[in-house]
Amino acid sequence: MSDQNPVFIPGPTNIPDRLRRALQVQTRDHRAPDFVDTLAPVLSGIKTVLNTTDGNVVTFPSTGTGGWEAAITNTLSPGDRVLVARYGMFSHRWIDLCQRHGLDVRIIETDWGAGAPADRFEEELRADTGHRIKAVLVTHNETATGVLSDISAVRRAMDMAGHPALLFVDAVSSLASVPFRMDDWGVDIVVSGSQKGFMLTTGMAILGVSPKALGAIETARLPRTFFDFRDMMGANARGGFPYTPPLQLIYGMRESLNMLFEEGLENVYARHNRLAEGVRRAVDAWGLKLVAKSPELYSDTVSAIYVPDGFDSNALTDHAFHAYDVSFGIGLGEMNGRAFRIGHLGSLTDVMVLSGLATIEMAMADLNYPIRLGSGVAAAQEYLRRPAQAAAKSAA
Amino acid sequence: MSDQNPVFIPGPTNIPDRLRRALQVQTRDHRAPDFVDTLAPVLSGIKTVLNTTDGNVVTFPSTGTGGWEAAITNTLSPGDRVLVARYGMFSHRWIDLCQRHGLDVRIIETDWGAGAPADRFEEELRADTGHRIKAVLVTHNETATGVLSDISAVRRAMDMAGHPALLFVDAVSSLASVPFRMDDWGVDIVVSGSQKGFMLTTGMAILGVSPKALGAIETARLPRTFFDFRDMMGANARGGFPYTPPLQLIYGMRESLNMLFEEGLENVYARHNRLAEGVRRAVDAWGLKLVAKSPELYSDTVSAIYVPDGFDSNALTDHAFHAYDVSFGIGLGEMNGRAFRIGHLGSLTDVMVLSGLATIEMAMADLNYPIRLGSGVAAAQEYLRRPAQAAAKSAA
Amino acid sequence: MSDQNPVFIPGPTNIPDRLRRALQVQTRDHRAPDFVDTLAPVLSGIKTVLNTTDGNVVTFPSTGTGGWEAAITNTLSPGDRVLVARYGMFSHRWIDLCQRHGLDVRIIETDWGAGAPADRFEEELRADTGHRIKAVLVTHNETATGVLSDISAVRRAMDMAGHPALLFVDAVSSLASVPFRMDDWGVDIVVSGSQKGFMLTTGMAILGVSPKALGAIETARLPRTFFDFRDMMGANARGGFPYTPPLQLIYGMRESLNMLFEEGLENVYARHNRLAEGVRRAVDAWGLKLVAKSPELYSDTVSAIYVPDGFDSNALTDHAFHAYDVSFGIGLGEMNGRAFRIGHLGSLTDVMVLSGLATIEMAMADLNYPIRLGSGVAAAQEYLRRPAQAAAKSAA
Amino acid sequence: MSDQNPVFIPGPTNIPDRLRRALQVQTRDHRAPDFVDTLAPVLSGIKTVLNTTDGNVVTFPSTGTGGWEAAITNTLSPGDRVLVARYGMFSHRWIDLCQRHGLDVRIIETDWGAGAPADRFEEELRADTGHRIKAVLVTHNETATGVLSDISAVRRAMDMAGHPALLFVDAVSSLASVPFRMDDWGVDIVVSGSQKGFMLTTGMAILGVSPKALGAIETARLPRTFFDFRDMMGANARGGFPYTPPLQLIYGMRESLNMLFEEGLENVYARHNRLAEGVRRAVDAWGLKLVAKSPELYSDTVSAIYVPDGFDSNALTDHAFHAYDVSFGIGLGEMNGRAFRIGHLGSLTDVMVLSGLATIEMAMADLNYPIRLGSGVAAAQEYLRRPAQAAAKSAA
Repeated sequence: MSDQNPVFIPGPTNIPDRLRRALQVQTRDHRAPDFVDTLAPVLSGIKTVLNTTDGNVVTFPSTGTGGWEAAITNTLSPGDRVLVARYGMFSHRWIDLCQRHGLDVRIIETDWGAGAPADRFEEELRADTGHRIKAVLVTHNETATGVLSDISAVRRAMDMAGHPALLFVDAVSSLASVPFRMDDWGVDIVVSGSQKGFMLTTGMAILGVSPKALGAIETARLPRTFFDFRDMMGANARGGFPYTPPLQLIYGMRESLNMLFEEGLENVYARHNRLAEGVRRAVDAWGLKLVAKSPELYSDTVSAIYVPDGFDSNALTDHAFHAYDVSFGIGLGEMNGRAFRIGHLGSLTDVMVLSGLATIEMAMADLNYPIRLGSGVAAAQEYLRRPAQAAAKSAA
Repeated sequence: MSDQNPVFIPGPTNIPDRLRRALQVQTRDHRAPDFVDTLAPVLSGIKTVLNTTDGNVVTFPSTGTGGWEAAITNTLSPGDRVLVARYGMFSHRWIDLCQRHGLDVRIIETDWGAGAPADRFEEELRADTGHRIKAVLVTHNETATGVLSDISAVRRAMDMAGHPALLFVDAVSSLASVPFRMDDWGVDIVVSGSQKGFMLTTGMAILGVSPKALGAIETARLPRTFFDFRDMMGANARGGFPYTPPLQLIYGMRESLNMLFEEGLENVYARHNRLAEGVRRAVDAWGLKLVAKSPELYSDTVSAIYVPDGFDSNALTDHAFHAYDVSFGIGLGEMNGRAFRIGHLGSLTDVMVLSGLATIEMAMADLNYPIRLGSGVAAAQEYLRRPAQAAAKSAA
Repeated sequence: MSDQNPVFIPGPTNIPDRLRRALQVQTRDHRAPDFVDTLAPVLSGIKTVLNTTDGNVVTFPSTGTGGWEAAITNTLSPGDRVLVARYGMFSHRWIDLCQRHGLDVRIIETDWGAGAPADRFEEELRADTGHRIKAVLVTHNETATGVLSDISAVRRAMDMAGHPALLFVDAVSSLASVPFRMDDWGVDIVVSGSQKGFMLTTGMAILGVSPKALGAIETARLPRTFFDFRDMMGANARGGFPYTPPLQLIYGMRESLNMLFEEGLENVYARHNRLAEGVRRAVDAWGLKLVAKSPELYSDTVSAIYVPDGFDSNALTDHAFHAYDVSFGIGLGEMNGRAFRIGHLGSLTDVMVLSGLATIEMAMADLNYPIRLGSGVAAAQEYLRRPAQAAAKSAA
Repeated sequence: MSDQNPVFIPGPTNIPDRLRRALQVQTRDHRAPDFVDTLAPVLSGIKTVLNTTDGNVVTFPSTGTGGWEAAITNTLSPGDRVLVARYGMFSHRWIDLCQRHGLDVRIIETDWGAGAPADRFEEELRADTGHRIKAVLVTHNETATGVLSDISAVRRAMDMAGHPALLFVDAVSSLASVPFRMDDWGVDIVVSGSQKGFMLTTGMAILGVSPKALGAIETARLPRTFFDFRDMMGANARGGFPYTPPLQLIYGMRESLNMLFEEGLENVYARHNRLAEGVRRAVDAWGLKLVAKSPELYSDTVSAIYVPDGFDSNALTDHAFHAYDVSFGIGLGEMNGRAFRIGHLGSLTDVMVLSGLATIEMAMADLNYPIRLGSGVAAAQEYLRRPAQAAAKSAA
């Protein structure tokens, strides 16, 4: 396995050198008086990325799945009803988690490739006149299908229905890669992780928690200790952690935030969009179809691409791995065998994206896909190239 | 803060260069076919350290606290009774965790500085003729007091009482530093972490689970998903993870195990004992007392040391940190202000230990402790020095 | 500047992670008894790469230029005549160095793009009946033009002329990337460096020295101390260095040799040839011409490519750097403005090469070169793709 | 060999983490337009350390020995007379280098343990009425004996004699650890390296060159190319290098200078003095003697210490290495077997120094030296401890 080829999985993402160096910090004492100097800017920096002033940031040495669990155990009680739409592997898994924690999960089955159905949410919420539904759970970016849902539309639906449910959002594969507006969208809990847009290793669950969600803790009877918001927030406020913190990841996150802010969040989002569009141009040139059903759903962090009928997407990703040492995302769940995925999030350049497109083209050609070598690359090049810079230069 | 001075906290421990390099691995695809080649030897290597053939190894991207939670949520149900002795901060915290998960915790209050009271366990278990007690929880090495308890004695007590309860052991700050015999001691669940004897960064909870404990899963009604044993074991068996794995820590753990096995576990344990005894000689020379009440309880991974009457241990650790850039363990819980701790576990050398003793001596002198500079160092030197090697050399 | 895009300069080359880790070794004592255990395998491993049994390996903390200087100062005296052909920037520079050291340099002017003219060497040597020519200097791989010369042909010419001159070869940008047969070709001194085929940082000059060249030291009157062969060989034989050694590079070189031998030198050479041919297919598809005049001269480590008339190669490399953060080799000397270079040596993958081709294509398109986007990439893909592996797989 | 124990050789020194990270930079293009942004602050920062405004800084990918060679080959011609005092291994080696380059070396034999004899220099220079002496060569810090010579006294002697010779100073093991005043002392060439006070890996020779020394280039007929000042200065002025630069070391040097300036050069020097004095207190407590003959000669970067009669210093350093994994400097030249050395330069803390003293004490005790364990440590502790900070603290 070459460490020199990028990965094109939708996370964990390629770790830039600057963050690899930041992660190398030797053990320091997390009970020392200076620990807070490292921790505090991390928490406030994440607030900036979340676009929240009222919200609180809570992290756990865990993954996004742990973040999901923290979201529900801190706010809900056994038997509480939650409303969720299932339209991909990750919304499916969150549903499973809720059920295993004894919640009454109202599922809106939605086509894979579609996004969160705001209209059907509204319908359900209007019908729930007794306000039995305590929370609406939405997967912002469904990594399995490459679909980005409109959270503001869900918020509007909830407001239109005049429903007081909490709004929980899984932003694991979207945060720090596409805009997120926690306060504007009225998000009560947002869940993310260190290994996607933050470009770090896996191991830190990141949550934004609204004052309203904090209030729900009072009555929440699902048991929790490791994932307890109050323990963590209380210890953080005193400059510490309720147990051993993931020190290196905290240092890494501080530097990740520095990188994001130096580039500028708007530029980070624009870069993701640009690279994603480059990939989509290639897909189009190949004559293939995205799983995402319509352009407004296209994810800027991952594209799930149907293979032509009669082909097996697993054979494709497998061949790309074995022949070219490059990892692409496999098709998950309903998409297994039917689609492969190109992750295009985190610290990525034009050049890296083109190398991924060139590789999967070769792999497809090797397996006799009806595509022309270079066609997807050329379409992406045409989109990604920077003639303006050249012109500016020759004019200078 | 100098990265060049060792830390003398009882974990996270100083990370040797070899492991820092191993942790630097760039992102690879955890869904790739070769992931299992990295994971499998980690799981089997940990079994070797646990001295188990029947047990299963389960890891989570988490900490020891997460491991505690996993132990109880996978095996117990709300209202289940567990038996625990409280003799330090970490046994206290595990009790708190059990209570917050709705367990009926039978607490044997024990002096801080004492170990697990096998006789009183036996008494309680004999009295529990209805077998309401489902598990006995023991902290192997109480990091707050520097006490190592005799797990085999607890097992004998359980056997003598003929009681079928499960035996859960917290070995967070003992595993890989002192011998652990899971099968011989009839341990059902042992909990540890990556950041102590394994010399790595924080972020991996490590559990050994006996077949009997696995059986208990069938009836356990505490909710769990992130920490579900079956999810993890099932995914591991298929070469994967139920969610994003802590890839770098898995690579790090593989190399940590290589280091431990190259040195030889018996040598690793002997080294810990040797260095711990060096520290104890220094404590004795200073005229100070260990919190651990008697020699058979002395921990080889951490020494908790009472400061003389009239002195504040927090002022001492604080001064050592600010004046010399060296972190020692503060006194926790009942010991706060009364004792400081010297961690002597993980990748440590004679030279490093002596530097810690020399530093705390200076700090004590600065604060007018009634100790003589050099006295503790000299006592440790006398114990640690290697005249035999010199003799062998001059004879050669 | 992104650390994530590969460089396509003909050295220093992209450093693979494994070597970056090896280079991180903390300071150790070069006067300690174990230093020789690190040094000895490095020296013997380099002998294997040189294909020599009789030759000696000498290294200096320096660069290839230092190696050139060492070659002549250890064997020649002021006024000694040497025979050299000038056909590129690096042969030119070696000539300059000789002249500045007071040698009488007989220069055979040769077209840039041609290789070492064995026939003209033979002519000159035959004419030198008095054997005034003490050494023939040949640049194996002329990095400025992408020309690999035939050293065995030069040796045959010398033998045909029955001339006793020493044969010195600059293999800086060829060694460890293409075959080198020091003994078979009768090379007396070969000069290389750490930062090309050995994939390391710059800072180690590497020389192979024949017994005949060692004999020449007796009479050589050019002054030298830092670059003295006998000082270095003597100290190395005693397990040391005559001055402070470049410790990290020695550790790095040991690991580099491990990597080369694990892959197998023949496979390393085949890989270089394969990737170079991929690049040449792209050049052909673009309708551009190599500087190297004929296929038998094509270098497998670097391709120098003429830009079309009316274009400035500096504007191209400059634009690639500023717009895409990718470095290609500029045109050097006579080729400045007329040719750019693609380095394809060291630790490189298919994927990396394709990313370079895709990038330079975009840059050319931006500057209105008459090339079609994707055309070069497609030609390289067609050559580089691995349908056999796919077929084998589907048959399995 | 443990990477966790510090080395106590007088260079290469322990590399702090911050510099290890800086040295990890991936290959970048040294011909890219941004290379100068990295190089320029390095050259100007070194000027600050040299305390020169008029001087030029020249670096080579080499070591201090290469720096010596550069100093003489750029300024002198065969047969030129130079004046040197021999009082240790490094002054001896520089003499040897001069002789091998055909210079006429006038040697003032001086006791090892003494410093540069300004009075005898003055005598010789006064006697040289014909100004045959072209340069006076002085070793600022003689690493073999732990003697720091007074360069200003040498300058005064030259001025008193009214002699126009150039003044060359070897500051390899003093620069960036003790004050150096190039302009005030009228130093024409100062030679240093990256691996001592600059705390980096070996591989960069660093020179300061006065305008007067630059003028001498015009007439200097010793051959040079690799070490040519004008080539290097010319290329640097154009933002480049005359050959492949040691890129990682240039990045490392930039960060080293940042560290030095952040701490403050005066603080860096004070720290070296403080730690050196701590070591000297220990030596005194052991009843041992320094090689340096009098306090004004004591070096703040290395102490050479006589072993008692009847003991072999090589057996001591060898035992420390084998029994405790710690490297101390061996006795060099005349001092071999008679003295060992403790290097105390570069990135070092109180704690590290104490660990070295504790180790060598044990090693001496093991070999039956008449010393008391802990005695040297206690003396150093007494000197190094920081009661004021404790007092300030308790007052706060």
